[in-house]
Amino acid sequence: MEENPQRRIIGNGKHLRLIDRGGWEHVERIGVSGIVALVAVTEDDELVLVEQYRPALDRRIIELPAGLVGDREGAEDEDMKDAARRELLEETGYEAAGLRYLTEGSISSGLSAEVLTFYLCPNVRKVGPGGGDDSEDIVTHVVAFAGIEDWLRSKEAEGIMIDTKVWAGLHFARATESQGEKA
Amino acid sequence: MEENPQRRIIGNGKHLRLIDRGGWEHVERIGVSGIVALVAVTEDDELVLVEQYRPALDRRIIELPAGLVGDREGAEDEDMKDAARRELLEETGYEAAGLRYLTEGSISSGLSAEVLTFYLCPNVRKVGPGGGDDSEDIVTHVVAFAGIEDWLRSKEAEGIMIDTKVWAGLHFARATESQGEKA
Repeated sequence: MEENPQRRIIGNGKHLRLIDRGGWEHVERIGVSGIVALVAVTEDDELVLVEQYRPALDRRIIELPAGLVGDREGAEDEDMKDAARRELLEETGYEAAGLRYLTEGSISSGLSAEVLTFYLCPNVRKVGPGGGDDSEDIVTHVVAFAGIEDWLRSKEAEGIMIDTKVWAGLHFARATESQGEKA
Repeated sequence: MEENPQRRIIGNGKHLRLIDRGGWEHVERIGVSGIVALVAVTEDDELVLVEQYRPALDRRIIELPAGLVGDREGAEDEDMKDAARRELLEETGYEAAGLRYLTEGSISSGLSAEVLTFYLCPNVRKVGPGGGDDSEDIVTHVVAFAGIEDWLRSKEAEGIMIDTKVWAGLHFARATESQGEKA
C-alpha cells in the first residue's frame, strides 16, 4: 500500500473530522494534542475505574480514567503528565503521587487516528469529589484486584459494557507487580 | 445527560459516517454487523499477532488478528464465529480448532460506536499462507509468551506501534491459563 497518500475531508464537525486517505477513511479529533489513560492503583491494591453514559454507544460503560490533552482554551500546550493528573482528579477525586509512562498505542487503528498514552499511577489517594466536569456525569468505582475479574463480569451481566482498555490496564497492573514494584 | 438524543449526519463516506447525537459527535461504520478480535494461541504457548501499515495513523502497527463481520456482499448475515475463523485464516494462515467467547467491549467510547467481540482461539495450527485479502499487506508474528513483553518493547523501540488490544489479549491469555485451562 502507498504510504502518505493524499488527504481529503469528507465531513467536519466541531470536535471530529472524517478523512479519506487514498481510499482509506478514518476520523480524527480537532484541536487535541493527545489522549491520556490512567492505570490508577490505591495503596490497598485497588484499581480506580469510572462509569459513564456514552452517547456513541447509547449505554453505560466502565473505563479507565482518561481524557483529552490540549483541548482547553488557553491550555493548548498542556503537558501530558499534567493532563493525566488533572483528568484523574476531575473524574475520580484521586490524586496521583507519581506517574510512570507505560506505552503509547492505537485503539482503533482501522478507523481512527487516536493515540493513547498510558500512565501507571501508583498509590493514588482520595482528595476530592470527582465526577467530571460540567458536561460529564461520572461514577467512580474502586475495586480490589483480588476479585476484579468477577466484579467486571457481574457488571457485564447487568448490561454495563467494559471498555477494552480496562483489560489492558489489568495486564499493566499485574506486569508491574511481577517486576516486584509496589503498584 | 439525556439518553437517546436525536441523530444528525455530519458526513457520509463509503465506509464511515460522522454523526452528531445531542451535541456529542461520533463515527460509525456503514454496512457492518460486528467486529471480531482474536486471542490466538498455539500449542507451544505462542501468541499470533499481525503487523500492517495503517493509513489512519500513517505507521505500521502490531495488533491482534481482527476483522469486520457482515461487510461482504452476499454474506451480510455472516455468523460472528464464522467471521472470526475466516479472519484468522485470511490474515495469519492459522486455523482455529475451537473458539471461546471472552467479552464484548467498546474500544473508543468517546468517539466511535464500535463494539469488538473477543474470542480465545486455543491450539491454532498453521494451514495456509495468511497475509490478508487483496487490499491488505499483513505480516504475521508468532511470539512465545515467555518474553513477549520484551519482544513488544523491542518493536516499539523500532518505531512500530503496539495496538492497545494486544495488552488486553495478554490479560485474557494469562487469565485463561490461571484458570487451569491449556490455552
